[in-house]
Amino acid sequence: MQSLPQSATADTISLLLGHPDPTTLFTPEFQAAVERTLALPQALTALQYGNEQGNLALIDYLVGKINRDQGLGISSRQLMITGGSTHAVDLVARLYTRPGGAVIVEAPTYADSLHIFRDHGIELHGVPLDEQGARVDELEKLLTRLSASDNPAKLFYTIPNFHNPTGITLSQQRRVEIVRLARQYNLMLVEDDVYRDLAFEADIPPSLFALTEGVNAIHIGSFSKTLAPGLRLGWLTAAPETVQRFVNCGTTQMGGGASPFTAQILAEYCRSGCWEPHIEHLRRLYQSRRDIMLTALERWMPAGVTWTQPDGGFFIWLTLPDDLQARDIKQQARARGVMVAAGEGYFLDPADGAHHLRLTYSFAPPSDIERAVRILAEVIGSSG
Amino acid sequence: MQSLPQSATADTISLLLGHPDPTTLFTPEFQAAVERTLALPQALTALQYGNEQGNLALIDYLVGKINRDQGLGISSRQLMITGGSTHAVDLVARLYTRPGGAVIVEAPTYADSLHIFRDHGIELHGVPLDEQGARVDELEKLLTRLSASDNPAKLFYTIPNFHNPTGITLSQQRRVEIVRLARQYNLMLVEDDVYRDLAFEADIPPSLFALTEGVNAIHIGSFSKTLAPGLRLGWLTAAPETVQRFVNCGTTQMGGGASPFTAQILAEYCRSGCWEPHIEHLRRLYQSRRDIMLTALERWMPAGVTWTQPDGGFFIWLTLPDDLQARDIKQQARARGVMVAAGEGYFLDPADGAHHLRLTYSFAPPSDIERAVRILAEVIGSSG
Repeated sequence: MQSLPQSATADTISLLLGHPDPTTLFTPEFQAAVERTLALPQALTALQYGNEQGNLALIDYLVGKINRDQGLGISSRQLMITGGSTHAVDLVARLYTRPGGAVIVEAPTYADSLHIFRDHGIELHGVPLDEQGARVDELEKLLTRLSASDNPAKLFYTIPNFHNPTGITLSQQRRVEIVRLARQYNLMLVEDDVYRDLAFEADIPPSLFALTEGVNAIHIGSFSKTLAPGLRLGWLTAAPETVQRFVNCGTTQMGGGASPFTAQILAEYCRSGCWEPHIEHLRRLYQSRRDIMLTALERWMPAGVTWTQPDGGFFIWLTLPDDLQARDIKQQARARGVMVAAGEGYFLDPADGAHHLRLTYSFAPPSDIERAVRILAEVIGSSG
Repeated sequence: MQSLPQSATADTISLLLGHPDPTTLFTPEFQAAVERTLALPQALTALQYGNEQGNLALIDYLVGKINRDQGLGISSRQLMITGGSTHAVDLVARLYTRPGGAVIVEAPTYADSLHIFRDHGIELHGVPLDEQGARVDELEKLLTRLSASDNPAKLFYTIPNFHNPTGITLSQQRRVEIVRLARQYNLMLVEDDVYRDLAFEADIPPSLFALTEGVNAIHIGSFSKTLAPGLRLGWLTAAPETVQRFVNCGTTQMGGGASPFTAQILAEYCRSGCWEPHIEHLRRLYQSRRDIMLTALERWMPAGVTWTQPDGGFFIWLTLPDDLQARDIKQQARARGVMVAAGEGYFLDPADGAHHLRLTYSFAPPSDIERAVRILAEVIGSSG
């Protein structure tokens, strides 16, 4: 079935990609913000090279929101607008690692971040997860071992909330312990937190950035999951000297700040108070999708299959019985019109993902989610 | 005068930055293209993650324009939409060099490209220019020397048309010779050609990309100089396998194609036939600015000062008498409200730029250009 496309068509259901629900992207409020932007004197400025740190109105808005939401007191010198989380992860890889240098990631972790780190020639080490997130005992063992080597780890990249691909949230206790280890081993903590605003239930624990008071920590956010990926805008928060280092680097100096035109539209959209109710709407929407998927999994999955219970975000992580290969299940499901991701790509050693599947509930409509889980369950039930 | 801003204010005139005339950026045609885009079904697609190679309609438009303008026959598999030329230069540095690897640049060359190459840890070598562009005899000497070393050069980065910072255009004869050397030494030619469409007079010689028939050559274009930098969009053309390599890299896979939303607006703008007349308007505008600056230089500059005669683009390169330091002149001019760039930043060895200034005629209005050149001439005349 190699000719099948990578996204949903009339005949296929995609539980594959971490894309937001397409029906949520284009709203009257967004359209109105574009039209207001075109009528403002700032439209002209937004078409010239921009301030390197990013659109100042958008920076001010985000600083206010972050301080309000998380009870922090960051300043505008601590936030930089980026071209999505991609740009932020790439800036970190570019300026806070060196080729051959050691970086620790979760196992599993976001496949495309692994790809960026590998493009920079970085030596990667993985820390396994359990239902509370990264295992601190394993992290400590790894740090001890690497600090005794000639290549000590300088950076830990983590997705603490509604983790991609597992949906797991790092517990508060683990966060405190990770911060302690980071201080002990002089480890930069990089927190890819693009699902943070999509919490369905209780409050999530404080960010590592908050727990470290912003020392040796970089926090990454994005508009891709809570507004629209096609705008390619996100942000990072860090110590002022870290933000300045990103501002002073070659790509920022050459191109100026991230997408001045779309950043001006977003500043207009956010300041008019449209974004927070939109996020609230998405929370309810994705919560109901998660519930539909969990209910369908309960109803249809054969014994021996287990899965995570995410409290937010886009993903559920399935564990197959040991005698079933995720790659085979993926191919068979595809032949029946259901696309899912096999676990291999999320691990440094692909074999570690041989019995896992990632299911996305954010993209497909509710009736498709139910049908897709049923088909997937049939495929799994008839295998092995 | 450290408190003076880096851009023009009521009291200062900027001949400093390579920015387009701000009055040309926001046009009724651009506004109409935005409004049409919002009304199209594609608006929704443009807000989702985009095709990794870029907006397909924009790719098709650019392929058609390039083939028409340059008499080429490139296919859509040979063009990728990028986040300005910055993204293209960075992709090249990322995937076609390695830290410590040798890259040849012109001396002088674009300061921010030097910055990007340095961020990638690249070993840089410079080839001097004369009024016909890069000196091929010096390039050949350098290639011979490096190919006998353990670090042969893999890539030559050139700005062939209306070069930044000198305004010089590489002659046809030199282009043919450079292509010959590139074949002989297996050198990738990277052509940063963002001023190409701003030719004032005669046709410019064929691109290196055209002369090599796209083999081992990457050509970089941009909307920043001929439409609006704040859109952060450009493109590159290369062999299909090179484009595929850029498409397959981590940052492209993670973020998707360059700015889907603004790319859809640009596709709409370009396909409606607005861009080419706009370019024609800019050609006439910048030609008249160049003429004003050249006339003012002739009229006011003291003996011993020489300058280039650009056939297009944004820049004139001034050479001061040996007893005058560009840095001092820059500071004194600043104190009198005129901002220019000193030559140091454009060379691998800053000392090579000690007697040069770059003047930009694209940004300031005509009356300011005249006044600024007169003030600069007074500063130079009263120095030394």
